Amino acid sequence: MEENNRTEIASLGEFGLIERLTAEMPLVNKSSCKGVGDDAAVMHYGDKATLVTTDLLLEGVHFDLTYVPLAHLGYKAAIVNFSDIYAMNGTPRQITVSLGVSKRFSVEDMEQLYAGIRMACANYNVDIVGGDTTSSMTGLTISITCIGEADDNKIVYRNGAKENDLICVSGDLGAAYMGLQLLEREKVAFAGQTDFTPEFGGKEYLLERQLKPEARRDIIEALDKAGIVPTAMMDISDGLSSELLHICKQSNAGCRVYEERIPIDYQTAIMAEELNMNLVTAALNGGEDYELLFTVPLTMHDAVSAIPGVKVIGHITAPSLGSYLLTRDGNEILLRAQGWNSLNE
Amino acid sequence: MEENNRTEIASLGEFGLIERLTAEMPLVNKSSCKGVGDDAAVMHYGDKATLVTTDLLLEGVHFDLTYVPLAHLGYKAAIVNFSDIYAMNGTPRQITVSLGVSKRFSVEDMEQLYAGIRMACANYNVDIVGGDTTSSMTGLTISITCIGEADDNKIVYRNGAKENDLICVSGDLGAAYMGLQLLEREKVAFAGQTDFTPEFGGKEYLLERQLKPEARRDIIEALDKAGIVPTAMMDISDGLSSELLHICKQSNAGCRVYEERIPIDYQTAIMAEELNMNLVTAALNGGEDYELLFTVPLTMHDAVSAIPGVKVIGHITAPSLGSYLLTRDGNEILLRAQGWNSLNE
Repeated sequence: MEENNRTEIASLGEFGLIERLTAEMPLVNKSSCKGVGDDAAVMHYGDKATLVTTDLLLEGVHFDLTYVPLAHLGYKAAIVNFSDIYAMNGTPRQITVSLGVSKRFSVEDMEQLYAGIRMACANYNVDIVGGDTTSSMTGLTISITCIGEADDNKIVYRNGAKENDLICVSGDLGAAYMGLQLLEREKVAFAGQTDFTPEFGGKEYLLERQLKPEARRDIIEALDKAGIVPTAMMDISDGLSSELLHICKQSNAGCRVYEERIPIDYQTAIMAEELNMNLVTAALNGGEDYELLFTVPLTMHDAVSAIPGVKVIGHITAPSLGSYLLTRDGNEILLRAQGWNSLNE
Repeated sequence: MEENNRTEIASLGEFGLIERLTAEMPLVNKSSCKGVGDDAAVMHYGDKATLVTTDLLLEGVHFDLTYVPLAHLGYKAAIVNFSDIYAMNGTPRQITVSLGVSKRFSVEDMEQLYAGIRMACANYNVDIVGGDTTSSMTGLTISITCIGEADDNKIVYRNGAKENDLICVSGDLGAAYMGLQLLEREKVAFAGQTDFTPEFGGKEYLLERQLKPEARRDIIEALDKAGIVPTAMMDISDGLSSELLHICKQSNAGCRVYEERIPIDYQTAIMAEELNMNLVTAALNGGEDYELLFTVPLTMHDAVSAIPGVKVIGHITAPSLGSYLLTRDGNEILLRAQGWNSLNE
């Protein structure tokens, strides 16, 4: 937040701010008929299903502006919504953006935030079609709702996993959580100083995973190309354990996942070592990975294994067998839904 | 907020709270395929347009829980979204509800809030299809997004008003603002006391307009029945002046409205007298009326006048003539977009 070149939001007013923030924002999707500037956005869908998801982000709870640049925050706030639509095997098409903004923030600050949101929308071909901007007494509030579409017969829920289905995960896990630990550590080390330049060399991947995550559109496209419709799917926002338990509960199933199969980047491993943290716990419960967790029939083993960036990490069992992690040393550990919030406490 | 019978939200956890809040919530609309419990809601529309609108409400900015019961707050939070969809000549079908909740609130508090939201949804045949619940450091945050549908050729925007069109308004104006003044006055009078029973006799209508507003579905239905598609329409949330100027700006037009034609309830008039406030200013700028402001061709004069609760208050002019209020004593006053927020400051 720069002190120079600062425009008070009050000098523009609410409508002025909205006009400024939403200027030059052409709609790219055919289904977007009417965007910002009326009581509601208008979309038109043919024979497709309409999906909608929403996320509320509060300063001090979901983000810390000490180390999160506003543009990155905007990017991530949009991405987490896209990720939810992809996790249904759908395509995000439109978002609405609601902001609660305290006097601490300038118009330039909001433009940075919006720049991030716009970049995410540009990268994923999504339209900003509306929203609400209001003053806040208490920092920054971001509420984004995303609308998407999907073929009726290709929507993937959480409740379709069957016994013997393979459990698959995209990318690698735990890096976003380690990125957060790194940022928190540097924040403490540099407390009270402004303009600090912490040492992040060799840890860029962890920071990127925390500050600028991507949604796995590529995996959805690859699955479609391979003719695979998962039996169940979620995105990993709260952590692998938590999401696996959601799928098992809603599918009335159990599962076995293998520690040695869980994909972890070497930077994540080095950071866990440095912080003397349990690497597997971070990968299981770290959260904010925004990777896709999905199940496919056993017959799809070769087809799914051939997709770059997808790893088979276990299989679905009968519900009576429970949900367990099989460790490298042959132990069975009951999966628990810790989530990343509880890890931070 | 009762101290007895209190369940800490922490004892349920986020998913437990959501499960509890969304239990027994059958979907009523054919287009609602999948509601709460997955990454995104699924809706299916045929040949209709899809509308979406969203509102963000923050404690201390939009509401004061000293005098607003949580059930009423929930009701109103839903209604203001429905009103936006009706203002497009559409029908609200689904909402998502995101809540940021501090530790000050109990599960019972949230159930009260939800009871109000559910009652609004029941009254207007709307489904709750998703949302997000998160902890907050700073009171209560409510973000609601509403999705609706409309016939393509019947959607009414703000930009269609033509010269000589009649300007119409439903119901009466200024009462919600006077209700707020009344509540604020009693709050000050009873400051520091708990369990106060302020004297609201004879002012019930003002309180109802402020605490439990309704969306004008009846007017939309009456217009449809009369074969009238307005040329422009908005709901009045910020005040008649502000909304008229929006329609004029977006329609590239001017307007003349007549002070003597502006509908005002007698309770509103009495309260303005009591508080020594300008009645017309309250009706023009008070806001939160959630009445419909719309324009129709001059040829529709008799048809629109025949609809109970609709009043013709003026007409659209060429843009060069500006936007003015004609007072009872024959003066022309330039309309200004004060809005209700600035009135409160």
